[in-house]
Amino acid sequence: MSTFQYPKLDLKTPVPSDIDIASDAVPLPVSVIASEAGINQDELDLYGKYKAKVHLSVLDRLADRPNGKYVVVTGITPTPLGEGKSTTTIGLCQALGAHLKKRVFSCVRQPSQGPTFGIKGGAAGGGYSQVIPMEEFNLHLTGDIHAITAANNLLAAAIDARILHESTQTDEQLFNRLCPVAKDGSRRFAPVMLRRLAKLGISKTDPSELSAEEVSSFVRLDIDPSLVTWNRVLDTNDRFLRGITIGQGKEEARFTRSTQFDIAVASEIMAVLALATSLADMRERLGRMVIGTSRKGVPVSADDIGAGGALTVLMKDAIMPTLMQTLEGTPVLVHAGPFANIAHGNSSIIADQIALKLAGADGYVVTEAGFGADIGAEKFFDIKCRESGLIPNVAVIVATIRALKMHGGGPKVTAGAPLDKAYTSENLELLSAGTDNLLKHISNLGKFGVQVVVALNRFSSDSNAEIELVLGRAKAVGARASVMCNHWAEGGQGAVELANAVVEACSVEPNFKYLYPLDLSIKEKIETIAKEIYGADSVEYLPEAEKKIALYTEQGFSKLPICMAKTHLSLSSDPEKKGVPKGFVLPIRDVRASIGAGFIYPLVGTMSTIPGLPTRPCFYEIDIDLKTGKVIGLS
Amino acid sequence: MSTFQYPKLDLKTPVPSDIDIASDAVPLPVSVIASEAGINQDELDLYGKYKAKVHLSVLDRLADRPNGKYVVVTGITPTPLGEGKSTTTIGLCQALGAHLKKRVFSCVRQPSQGPTFGIKGGAAGGGYSQVIPMEEFNLHLTGDIHAITAANNLLAAAIDARILHESTQTDEQLFNRLCPVAKDGSRRFAPVMLRRLAKLGISKTDPSELSAEEVSSFVRLDIDPSLVTWNRVLDTNDRFLRGITIGQGKEEARFTRSTQFDIAVASEIMAVLALATSLADMRERLGRMVIGTSRKGVPVSADDIGAGGALTVLMKDAIMPTLMQTLEGTPVLVHAGPFANIAHGNSSIIADQIALKLAGADGYVVTEAGFGADIGAEKFFDIKCRESGLIPNVAVIVATIRALKMHGGGPKVTAGAPLDKAYTSENLELLSAGTDNLLKHISNLGKFGVQVVVALNRFSSDSNAEIELVLGRAKAVGARASVMCNHWAEGGQGAVELANAVVEACSVEPNFKYLYPLDLSIKEKIETIAKEIYGADSVEYLPEAEKKIALYTEQGFSKLPICMAKTHLSLSSDPEKKGVPKGFVLPIRDVRASIGAGFIYPLVGTMSTIPGLPTRPCFYEIDIDLKTGKVIGLS
Repeated sequence: MSTFQYPKLDLKTPVPSDIDIASDAVPLPVSVIASEAGINQDELDLYGKYKAKVHLSVLDRLADRPNGKYVVVTGITPTPLGEGKSTTTIGLCQALGAHLKKRVFSCVRQPSQGPTFGIKGGAAGGGYSQVIPMEEFNLHLTGDIHAITAANNLLAAAIDARILHESTQTDEQLFNRLCPVAKDGSRRFAPVMLRRLAKLGISKTDPSELSAEEVSSFVRLDIDPSLVTWNRVLDTNDRFLRGITIGQGKEEARFTRSTQFDIAVASEIMAVLALATSLADMRERLGRMVIGTSRKGVPVSADDIGAGGALTVLMKDAIMPTLMQTLEGTPVLVHAGPFANIAHGNSSIIADQIALKLAGADGYVVTEAGFGADIGAEKFFDIKCRESGLIPNVAVIVATIRALKMHGGGPKVTAGAPLDKAYTSENLELLSAGTDNLLKHISNLGKFGVQVVVALNRFSSDSNAEIELVLGRAKAVGARASVMCNHWAEGGQGAVELANAVVEACSVEPNFKYLYPLDLSIKEKIETIAKEIYGADSVEYLPEAEKKIALYTEQGFSKLPICMAKTHLSLSSDPEKKGVPKGFVLPIRDVRASIGAGFIYPLVGTMSTIPGLPTRPCFYEIDIDLKTGKVIGLS
Repeated sequence: MSTFQYPKLDLKTPVPSDIDIASDAVPLPVSVIASEAGINQDELDLYGKYKAKVHLSVLDRLADRPNGKYVVVTGITPTPLGEGKSTTTIGLCQALGAHLKKRVFSCVRQPSQGPTFGIKGGAAGGGYSQVIPMEEFNLHLTGDIHAITAANNLLAAAIDARILHESTQTDEQLFNRLCPVAKDGSRRFAPVMLRRLAKLGISKTDPSELSAEEVSSFVRLDIDPSLVTWNRVLDTNDRFLRGITIGQGKEEARFTRSTQFDIAVASEIMAVLALATSLADMRERLGRMVIGTSRKGVPVSADDIGAGGALTVLMKDAIMPTLMQTLEGTPVLVHAGPFANIAHGNSSIIADQIALKLAGADGYVVTEAGFGADIGAEKFFDIKCRESGLIPNVAVIVATIRALKMHGGGPKVTAGAPLDKAYTSENLELLSAGTDNLLKHISNLGKFGVQVVVALNRFSSDSNAEIELVLGRAKAVGARASVMCNHWAEGGQGAVELANAVVEACSVEPNFKYLYPLDLSIKEKIETIAKEIYGADSVEYLPEAEKKIALYTEQGFSKLPICMAKTHLSLSSDPEKKGVPKGFVLPIRDVRASIGAGFIYPLVGTMSTIPGLPTRPCFYEIDIDLKTGKVIGLS
């Protein structure tokens, strides 16, 4: 028997600020967390005392062990304030582990540093349900996002440099530089070049045997500068990089080009990290990422540029999930955090795989899907689970009385502004009108054949009558269970009923299915999601979208799953339409593709891919206490 | 007695490639290296098995211990191929530690990732004198450069966002956002705002007491967009970012501005990291970095923007040096790597401080100064030692027969092209004509009152007559010792004679002095360096330089030391002038200031601050061996 003791919470009322709770907590050494989680010390790379990378060799060691139960936490259509999915994920795991003594793992996303210093603040849960140390979680962690930035921008630099070099050199000059003659007169292809040769249908492996025509097709990627889709990235909220012109230095001045930076978590490399199932799979995905199109319309890949191997080397540590802990000492795997609109918004497959093996037959893995269930959960099932082959057992859907009242017609909810009285005192009328949004999401989740458990995330101003109303309705439309939880104020103890409901729901044999088969056309797949999940009457394609659908179909990419880039603030494409909008047409403005990650992403409306800073960013309060060395002011 | 055993080298002939030697080596666990180095386990944060951050608390624990001997490794004016300063630094330490059984530390710079994937390849020494694991050393290490990138770019984003917000809001709107009214009606200044108030001479601490005029001067930084000197950075060789226009997004389009990216190691934050003497000192330096000038000519600082604390938080782990090891198991502290032209090109003061305490009275710390002795060593003495107050004992100057022949009139040496026969066979005439460059550097180093030891870094083609010629002449002009070393081929064993010479030279009481006092004018300081060290007849100032000298003098920055931004390929400003140029005028094109780091840097000629990628970058060969997980192709 293990002598492991879950740390006890010292609950205070009123609940202190997140950082005060987090700084008062004394984390266990991560080596203790690892050992209790069944991770061997040689499978662990410590990063300081409270974070550690977990080696993928765990998967080999436990290949024959059955997986644990697989639980996804999702939510109703939220207010701009968020309804507590992360907090519920952590609270549920604290309950399952520290209170029900089950073996349990939380799998969560690494947050972008941009919002930490911008508007939103940190993202490690809240109240008495948090990942600690919260400053480690919200800052560099173990460097994965920095590795993505480095890899993304190496590829970007290589693209423009290649365009420049091709424009100033003859075929022969290019070939002599790409395959230089060695001192002994020999010349060879770098291994990555064989991939390009294979793509061109050239099976020769001796450079000297290539015909002039073959040399030309080998050395000339002939990238159309106006069709480069690969952007540079930074993990910073820098709105002035949303539209830029590059190449205005003296030596490059003939080659100016309009482009933009995205936030690092919007990089396709982040989506690749999240969807890779092994190191070898990540290497292949990184190499086949498409960065643009040649003047003849051929997609150009990272391996065509020669960079697939180098990108993999830059990502070799990032592929290992980071082990941390909750306030009650249960293990957390933090790994990947792709944008939830232009990407799929879910933490990594690899972390889930590792956690499911470590959990074993009697254990539980709770993973969070970004945004509301129409986006995050649909992508979890149709993209992430399809790539991994893993079968989810239960979907927990987080709801709040506040958000349901908004859906019932309550006044607009705005971050930073005080909440209207309708939200802070009993109002059964608004609430009753708004429960439809929850019921629609429950019905949607049912289409995937998983058991649905509703977690009503309690706020102190919620009345018992309000709570009863929601729980009753949810049960009536087929939720397996529907429970109130109060883990923000009480930690795991506040989610014990939820945990019991999840355990019970996991006892049902899953009947999991995808919403659509991959062999439908791109349009058929889009329409299935729009009608079945969003409730749209039909879909409208703008000319740019039509053009891209034709292009991707011609290029052979039509069998990929669909990753809708839609607002999370409405089931429709209009963030102002609350509740369950009906009779609307879903407009597809443009369609893009992440070929390495492996999905097509239709743009429903305009998506900002790099946030900005407000007049008074969070950073004004952030500093180090020079006496204690502790971080202060992080929210 | 410790049971520690230095790993034995298995020397091969011919010497294998750097990566082959490095991958064949089995590093000791870094916890063993730490323990042997006298670092307690609670002063160590492991980053995997072979890297660890060392806490600054070592300095408190050992405050009363005497420092070790302080040795700086510098070089003659090099060829573009480099003459082996890093390799000599490592080889000398392997000799002192593994062979002479002295307590010894190498303090080296962290390399930029740009060149690793670009032209130059890695930078961990070479042959049998290397820091291992070399792929860790050359890639993310412990994330310090990534932290610098994040901090630098947060400040950059904040500058442009602030200009935008000031342009669209009244004084009152700005004030209401910067100091919002809380629920209870109170309002307060964030602590960092008190710094700006103090600068403005406002001693009030209650926002409601400020007059309208005070509010206006508080909220309006009034930055002149054309006078912003703070650039964004990436640790990538991306030449297309040398000249860019930002702010062309739809919502920012009125605020376009021309700017550029630099390589991350050129960030002033890197120079701050290298020159900080404690966490509190780093906090002050980061806050006082000047990012530009207001329309009224007032310097605007990072603390004016409100970001000094947040930058410190982003840099809180980066301030700890990273412990690694040489091929023979001696400890290495890797920390900071500021650009050697626009900054001072030396590793950190903090690493040297820690190493000197750990070494103790009988021990040795060997630190490397970038570029030739006219630049790296002069800045080591006049900037780094002045900031730290540390007294150097010995300067080792690395010379090669190859470089001396170049100075004697040998044919041009170009990276990538085969070496002329003059360099690979005996040529006493060229060599004799070229030794002047070495003698000038020896004489320069003597001006600082340190003992000089010449290390002639042997190449296999050097003849005994050539070696004798150099060693004899060096001795004759006052070098304490002058020895041939062969650590590249033999590891520490090849540098034992050098190590003995260094030990002997360290027994002399140092008579250290700076080249110039700080209270000279900017021009007097520039002229002292130009005449005494470079051998210039006089200095010429272009109008932009005159203007800036007047500005910085008026702003009160004239008492800072000078950090010359000059080519390292000649003692003069013309890289083509080899040997010891005479009768030249040193042109100062422009003058800039790093107020946080604490130096003025005159630009002698044009400096590229972000390299580019060649047609065939190093990354073509870099990949992961998917069977072993090892990095391949890193050079």
